[in-house]
Amino acid sequence: MNTEDTDKEFDKKGITLNVLGKHSIAEYYDCDREIINDQDLIEKLMIEAVEISGATLVKTVFHKFSPHGVTGIVVVAESHFAIHTWPEYGYCAVDIFTCGDVIDNRLALDHIKKQLCAKSVSVLEMKRGILDTGEDIRYKPLSA
Amino acid sequence: MNTEDTDKEFDKKGITLNVLGKHSIAEYYDCDREIINDQDLIEKLMIEAVEISGATLVKTVFHKFSPHGVTGIVVVAESHFAIHTWPEYGYCAVDIFTCGDVIDNRLALDHIKKQLCAKSVSVLEMKRGILDTGEDIRYKPLSA
Repeated sequence: MNTEDTDKEFDKKGITLNVLGKHSIAEYYDCDREIINDQDLIEKLMIEAVEISGATLVKTVFHKFSPHGVTGIVVVAESHFAIHTWPEYGYCAVDIFTCGDVIDNRLALDHIKKQLCAKSVSVLEMKRGILDTGEDIRYKPLSA
Repeated sequence: MNTEDTDKEFDKKGITLNVLGKHSIAEYYDCDREIINDQDLIEKLMIEAVEISGATLVKTVFHKFSPHGVTGIVVVAESHFAIHTWPEYGYCAVDIFTCGDVIDNRLALDHIKKQLCAKSVSVLEMKRGILDTGEDIRYKPLSA
């Protein structure tokens, strides 16, 4: 079942409920503990994930915590990519929140899995901003 | 049922499943369309929300889109606060992802609701990073 099929479930009996965004909430377990404590590597792989998904990078903010752990956010024209790492547990929390039908969150999630060397992954996908507009909506700004 | 009660559900038969973070995923509908298109106001209310919750601000990144819409992320020592606004629909998506037992996401969510003049709100709360450590865990870095 692709995303378009899912969206059609909201479009019944003449009621047009449109969906603004899709939010992939991912848990990566048993990651490489050195990689996920390296701010430069995390920044590189997250920016690559944005590019691979087709999203448009706007701004980034990354931070290394003491004694370990990295947080990184990439603001994109279509919303955001976020990662928080806990090297002491080999765990990373990743959020990919995008709008529109063009961005492929799963390509980004797959790239991140490989780069983190994660042995176990779970992903919850949810719709954000279900609007009863009665008409087609524009998902993202005209320009960043 | 408070958070401590919920966490105890994971602690049965000698298996200690600890939870790293709590993630509040909020939808604000019918907000004041001028307020949610004002980057300065959005930045102010999000930083206030961080302070009210008890979280520790680390870095911020805010961006105004053309022709309308604001994205804002506050990196905190305990993870992040995020907002995306669609003034054309009066809608805002807010994420509050925090670690530990001290931060009160609901105080922040309530402050944001009032400041956005949102007439309708829905919140999904989920656990992030459920770890089978068998011991107590440290939720956040020692210092930012």
